Amino acid sequence: MTEIEQILSTYSQKFNAELERYFPKTAAPEHRAMEAMRYSLLNGGKRLRPFLLHQTASLFDVPYETALPVAVSLEMLHTYSLIHDDLPAMDNDDLRRGKPTCHKAYDEATAILAGDGLLTYAFEVLNSAHITDAKKVELTLMLAQAAGAKAGMIAGQVLDLYTDSHKLHANAEDIIKHTEELKTGCLLRYPCEAGAVLGNATKEEKNLLIKFSRNLGIAFQITDDILDIKGDEKVVGKTLKKDKAQHKLNFVSIYGADKAYEIAVDLIEEAESLISTFGQKADNLKNLSRYFLTRNY
Amino acid sequence: MTEIEQILSTYSQKFNAELERYFPKTAAPEHRAMEAMRYSLLNGGKRLRPFLLHQTASLFDVPYETALPVAVSLEMLHTYSLIHDDLPAMDNDDLRRGKPTCHKAYDEATAILAGDGLLTYAFEVLNSAHITDAKKVELTLMLAQAAGAKAGMIAGQVLDLYTDSHKLHANAEDIIKHTEELKTGCLLRYPCEAGAVLGNATKEEKNLLIKFSRNLGIAFQITDDILDIKGDEKVVGKTLKKDKAQHKLNFVSIYGADKAYEIAVDLIEEAESLISTFGQKADNLKNLSRYFLTRNY
Repeated sequence: MTEIEQILSTYSQKFNAELERYFPKTAAPEHRAMEAMRYSLLNGGKRLRPFLLHQTASLFDVPYETALPVAVSLEMLHTYSLIHDDLPAMDNDDLRRGKPTCHKAYDEATAILAGDGLLTYAFEVLNSAHITDAKKVELTLMLAQAAGAKAGMIAGQVLDLYTDSHKLHANAEDIIKHTEELKTGCLLRYPCEAGAVLGNATKEEKNLLIKFSRNLGIAFQITDDILDIKGDEKVVGKTLKKDKAQHKLNFVSIYGADKAYEIAVDLIEEAESLISTFGQKADNLKNLSRYFLTRNY
Repeated sequence: MTEIEQILSTYSQKFNAELERYFPKTAAPEHRAMEAMRYSLLNGGKRLRPFLLHQTASLFDVPYETALPVAVSLEMLHTYSLIHDDLPAMDNDDLRRGKPTCHKAYDEATAILAGDGLLTYAFEVLNSAHITDAKKVELTLMLAQAAGAKAGMIAGQVLDLYTDSHKLHANAEDIIKHTEELKTGCLLRYPCEAGAVLGNATKEEKNLLIKFSRNLGIAFQITDDILDIKGDEKVVGKTLKKDKAQHKLNFVSIYGADKAYEIAVDLIEEAESLISTFGQKADNLKNLSRYFLTRNY
C-alpha cells in the first residue's frame, strides 16, 4: 500500500464510523428505507469526495469536526445517485463495490425511497452543521446546483442516458466532456469549492481550487474508462466492459487507451502545480491526484 | 362554484404562472429531466399546500411575494413524491390528474430523474428566497425532516407499502393514523408551520397551527379514502377503488364511510374553532377546511 492509500484507508475507516452515528439502530417498520440507506452508505466506498472536502478545508486550517457534517452530507448525496443509477430503469446494475446493489439487497421500491431519503437527509445534515447560517445557505445552494437538473449531475445523467451513441457525432469530444463535467465533475468540484467556503478562501484561491477539481474530474473519468476495459472485475467491484458493449462514447473510445492516459497525466500534472501555492498543506491533495493515475479500482 | 373554490382557482392560476418562470424554455438535450419536471409540476394540481402556506403566512401579514418561493419549493417537493409514488415499482399508476403520469408521458428513467430533480430544486428555490438566512436554515431543516425517512413522508410511504394489509391487525387504527400522519400529514403540517415561521409567530400560535394542520390532515385523508370508493374517476382524475382491490387498511375500511365522514366533520369543526383567534384573517382557512368535507376531487 502506498502512503496515500494508507492515508485514504485510515480516513475512510474513521469516516465510516462517523456515518454509523447518523443511523440509530431501530427495528421500527417505517425504517426499512433508513436501513437500506445505511446499507448502501456503509457499502465500503472509497470516500474520495469527503476526503477531497476535508483536504481542501484543511488548506485553510478548518478543523476536521467542522467540515465533517458537510462531508457526510456530500457522501449521502453521492450514494443516493449511485442507488438510483443502479436501478433497472437506469444502468440496471446488480453489483456495486462487490456487493448486491440496493434494489437487489432490498427491492426496487425500497431502493427508490432509500435514494430519495439520502438526498433529503443530505440537506438536513448539511443544515445541522456547526457553521454560520450564511455558510449553510451558500453550501445548500451550491450542493443543490451541483446535483441538479439544470446544470448539475442530473443533467449529466440525462446526457449519458439519452445521447445516441450509435450515431456518429462530429463533436463527440465536446459531448463527452460536457457529459462528464456535469455527471461526475459537479460532485468533484463541490467538495473543493465547499472546502474553500468553509475556510473563508479568497476568490482567487477558490477559483484555483475549482480549476484543480476540473482537471481531477476529467482525469478521474479517463481512468474510470480505462478501468472499464482493463480492470479486474473482482478488484473494481462492479460489472466492467459495459461501455463497450453499449457502444458508449467515452474518452477511451475516442482517443484509445494510451492517448487517453497521456491526457490524464497532463491534467494531473497541471492540477499538482495549481495547488503548489499552498505548500506542504497540499501534499495529500497532490498525492491523491497522482494516485488517480495508478488506482486499480 | 363556491366562494372558496373560486378563491382557490384564482390562486392556483396565479401560482401556476409563477411556477412557469422557474423553467426557462430550452431545447438543450440535457434538459429532458427539466421538461419532465415542468410537465408534472404544471399538470393542474389543486395547489392546496402552497395555498395553506400562503394563507397561514397571511395571518401574520407576510406579503405574497415573500412566501412565494417557500410555497413553490413545497409544491416541487410534493410533485416529486407523486412522480416517484406513481412509478411501476411503487403504486404503478398510469393516470394523475387525468393525464399520463410522468413515466408514461416520458419513460421510467426520466421519471426517476425528474423526481430527483424536483426534490433537489426544492431546496435550491427555498434557499433563494428573500428571507433571512436564519429562516432559510430553519425552513430547510423543517422541510427535510417533514419529507424524510426517519419521521417524515418517506417513512410513511414505507409503512403504506410494507404494512401487511392481508393480516388482521389488532391495532389497525393506530397503524393507519401513524401511516397517514407520516405520509400525508407531514407535508400538510409543514406549510402551516412554515407560515408561522415566516410570520415570526409566537410559540403558542405555531403550536395552534400545527394542531390545526393535524386535524386537516386526517380529515383530508378520510375524504380521500371516501373518494376512492365513491368518487367519479373522471372528476378525481386518477384510478379509483385501488385501496379496496389491494385490501388496503384505511379509515373507511375500518369505520365504514358514514362513521369515517362523521369523524372528519368533528375534526374540521375543531380545526375551525382552533383558528378563530385570528379573526377574519382566518376566513379563507376556515372555508378551506369546510371545503375538504365537500370536495369531489
